[in-house]
Amino acid sequence: MTPEVRIIGINGLPEVTPGSDLAGLLAEAARAQGTPLQEGDVVVITQKVVSKTEGRLVDLSTITPSPLAERWAAEQGRPASLIELALRESRRVSRMDRGVLLTETHHGFYCVNAGVDTSNVPGDGMATLLPQDPDGSARTVRKGLRKATGHDVAVIITDSWGRPWREGITNFAIGAAGIGVLRDYRGMEDPYGHELHASVVAVVDELASAAELVMGKLDRVPAAIVRGYEYSSTTGTMQDLVRPAEQDLYR
Amino acid sequence: MTPEVRIIGINGLPEVTPGSDLAGLLAEAARAQGTPLQEGDVVVITQKVVSKTEGRLVDLSTITPSPLAERWAAEQGRPASLIELALRESRRVSRMDRGVLLTETHHGFYCVNAGVDTSNVPGDGMATLLPQDPDGSARTVRKGLRKATGHDVAVIITDSWGRPWREGITNFAIGAAGIGVLRDYRGMEDPYGHELHASVVAVVDELASAAELVMGKLDRVPAAIVRGYEYSSTTGTMQDLVRPAEQDLYR
Repeated sequence: MTPEVRIIGINGLPEVTPGSDLAGLLAEAARAQGTPLQEGDVVVITQKVVSKTEGRLVDLSTITPSPLAERWAAEQGRPASLIELALRESRRVSRMDRGVLLTETHHGFYCVNAGVDTSNVPGDGMATLLPQDPDGSARTVRKGLRKATGHDVAVIITDSWGRPWREGITNFAIGAAGIGVLRDYRGMEDPYGHELHASVVAVVDELASAAELVMGKLDRVPAAIVRGYEYSSTTGTMQDLVRPAEQDLYR
Repeated sequence: MTPEVRIIGINGLPEVTPGSDLAGLLAEAARAQGTPLQEGDVVVITQKVVSKTEGRLVDLSTITPSPLAERWAAEQGRPASLIELALRESRRVSRMDRGVLLTETHHGFYCVNAGVDTSNVPGDGMATLLPQDPDGSARTVRKGLRKATGHDVAVIITDSWGRPWREGITNFAIGAAGIGVLRDYRGMEDPYGHELHASVVAVVDELASAAELVMGKLDRVPAAIVRGYEYSSTTGTMQDLVRPAEQDLYR
């Protein structure tokens, strides 16, 4: 049988605000465009709409930068309030060099400005923060989608980050519910009978990247359905994907 | 309009050997399973079949390890000939620690053992090397596919690598033809009228990840068609994606 996966963008989501029923709106938008959710779909959602729904919005003018943020931002020509917010969202600074502030977030993720971002936010001088508990956010949406549609789906929340060594950003998973974040092939045999060793695949990151193909950056497509992908529906937590410090050669 | 992208695995490719007409075999396999290639498709192919076709296969028993490879391999319980081959395929060692040899390949890629790999190779004690010129390999397949089908398609060659900070491997692009490897949104405006700053997307890596969803590690699905994705058909080279040393904070 020919394996096939469909990536379907969810269009026409209205502007969300704190307290919006994101699951209900997504279910309705998917139905309205003729692609209602089905059992076993994976629903991939950008962090931006989740953060807006959860009120993770900050007016930069209300932030008083620390002396460190003030000084470094001035040196690098960056907005001090944004740098201050990024430091507040971090548990460790990994690099602060050549105009780039790259930190470890409270969740254990590594990204520029701790995921604090001013694009795709209505109004001026507003920034979004990453959800406080992205796995919890994913569980809430998953529960809401079950209520709205009667179907069990997996939910992945994503953000776009740079990587060492390679130009360009790609989509990464930051929260997951209803799906195992890693697929483990270790101990299995390849078609030639050799045991596979280094094959634990970060499937949620691959699903995040796949979804970006229909999302773009300019269009109002903040979510996508991945249909036809078989996944393990065990409880997922992004913490399974965070590499322990002592095993990481590039902190 | 609902944006939709289809990821279709190409099944039933026969075992390839040095000199096989990979493009012809892929075109035929796609046709045989009822999903013939179409104009504008992106064809994503794993490094493994490309390397086999190009004869990038090495019998590990023919390799004499250097003293460094010998000593480190013994300490870490790794095969010395594999470590030696990995060093030969590298232009710089980035990390050699806790059992992991991570180098910069001659192409400028960062991966474990410089991409030298013993899985999914027929016979015992055989390893594949990455293609010498993956962009060239992609161009050759693209040309062959045009000849076999009459259609212009883009071609991406992939390998699976680990990443700093995150557990699990994902698929990355190592060669490209007929597609711009980066999509640049800088200077464009988001739906709220704010200029986008940090938005250059490594689309070939996202396409590589998407293709992995139908490839798996155990099934004989060494290639996939991505259909419905609009891309810039300018000449691509993976070198556009290799970050210059002086701009990289994590070498």
